[in-house]
Amino acid sequence: MLKIVGFGSGAKDNMTLEASAAISSAQLIVGYNTYVDILKQYFPDKEYYSTNMMQEKERCQYAIDMANEGRDVVLVCSGDSGVYGMASLVYELADEGTDIKVISGVTAANSGAACLGAPLSHDFAVISLSDCMTPWELIKKRIRAMAESDMVMCIYNPSSRRRAGYLKEACDIVMEVQPADTVCGYVRNIGRDNETAGVLTLKELADFKADMFTTVYIGNSHTKIINGKMVTPRGYKVV
Amino acid sequence: MLKIVGFGSGAKDNMTLEASAAISSAQLIVGYNTYVDILKQYFPDKEYYSTNMMQEKERCQYAIDMANEGRDVVLVCSGDSGVYGMASLVYELADEGTDIKVISGVTAANSGAACLGAPLSHDFAVISLSDCMTPWELIKKRIRAMAESDMVMCIYNPSSRRRAGYLKEACDIVMEVQPADTVCGYVRNIGRDNETAGVLTLKELADFKADMFTTVYIGNSHTKIINGKMVTPRGYKVV
Repeated sequence: MLKIVGFGSGAKDNMTLEASAAISSAQLIVGYNTYVDILKQYFPDKEYYSTNMMQEKERCQYAIDMANEGRDVVLVCSGDSGVYGMASLVYELADEGTDIKVISGVTAANSGAACLGAPLSHDFAVISLSDCMTPWELIKKRIRAMAESDMVMCIYNPSSRRRAGYLKEACDIVMEVQPADTVCGYVRNIGRDNETAGVLTLKELADFKADMFTTVYIGNSHTKIINGKMVTPRGYKVV
Repeated sequence: MLKIVGFGSGAKDNMTLEASAAISSAQLIVGYNTYVDILKQYFPDKEYYSTNMMQEKERCQYAIDMANEGRDVVLVCSGDSGVYGMASLVYELADEGTDIKVISGVTAANSGAACLGAPLSHDFAVISLSDCMTPWELIKKRIRAMAESDMVMCIYNPSSRRRAGYLKEACDIVMEVQPADTVCGYVRNIGRDNETAGVLTLKELADFKADMFTTVYIGNSHTKIINGKMVTPRGYKVV
């Protein structure tokens, strides 16, 4: 049996009961180095197999092979394993005979939103700025479409050394449609000891130095600041 | 202190450790009748205050008042309290002096996705078809924008007695842009004993009888069926 488990933000508390039970009963836990290091704090006496970034395919294949040999394997991802996680890759690699179960978790969009207030209380989109596996032109098209239809956006992977200017470019696209003082927010290191969060304008976000541990939120025309929190109302009709 | 807690799908297992701890240590649990009935199974010896649908404002105000009187109050929502939940309404009603903490949970988009396979493994949007508090014209505009930018969509509240034709109308809009055999999926009663899920085409979805306990997924041009599961690949670039 192969369980693909999202363990949430990284704070043990943000894990679901099911994720926690699956990890603690597994015979083998497979994952990316950084994630495995987090889990070793909570589940020290387990067997782990970890690999570096960019070795996703090899790691998933190993988890599949071990499950096919009859072991109880958990493949771990941060957040939800179905959101930019390993679940789809496992389905693509495995054959019909592999027994697979996806265990959902809290993705960064939601754990980060809780830090900021309630930015995602109405229709929203989750978009990654990573162009490793998606053409940048398509990403920009999606950002424009979301802005034009007044969707709140949650942006994953807003920046990296190679993609330093991408967040600015994304904000500039949104500013062609939405005002520069649109309410935005960021959360860095969600659920970790050094978690920080802040509310800022779209214009400020364009020049904000995000890193790969930052999740970014762009509000819509209804998003406002209430007592320092970023809040999108549940409804737009005046009742 | 007022904690606004999303308890996930309704299966106890889908709750985070933090949500479970907050509920079990609360002095008062406030929520919608149906949700309170679910929680009473897991936490029978607690004080509950529940009201009917459409009484959200009164319920949130009661929770705020009790917290302001010094009680440890938990306001519960299914899924994530920040996604079409009560978190934003509480921020709108409370004043600066109320101590508020949002505790994130697994929203139906993610718990349902795990039942279907991995439909949300790339950029996606969450959109509600309920026009109680949002103009239907805006909802349709958003659906068109999602389809035109090839975003996977997760649809909440796809149908109700009054809105029987809305899902069909939404699918018809998508079919103006995407082929009729686009891979779609539904999950009904996520996390409950009578949970059902299925994969179908966009054309079939247009005539599907969804109810208010159903969450619907519309794939993008890359979404495919693998061994009966709905899977959107993590990347679209051929590596």
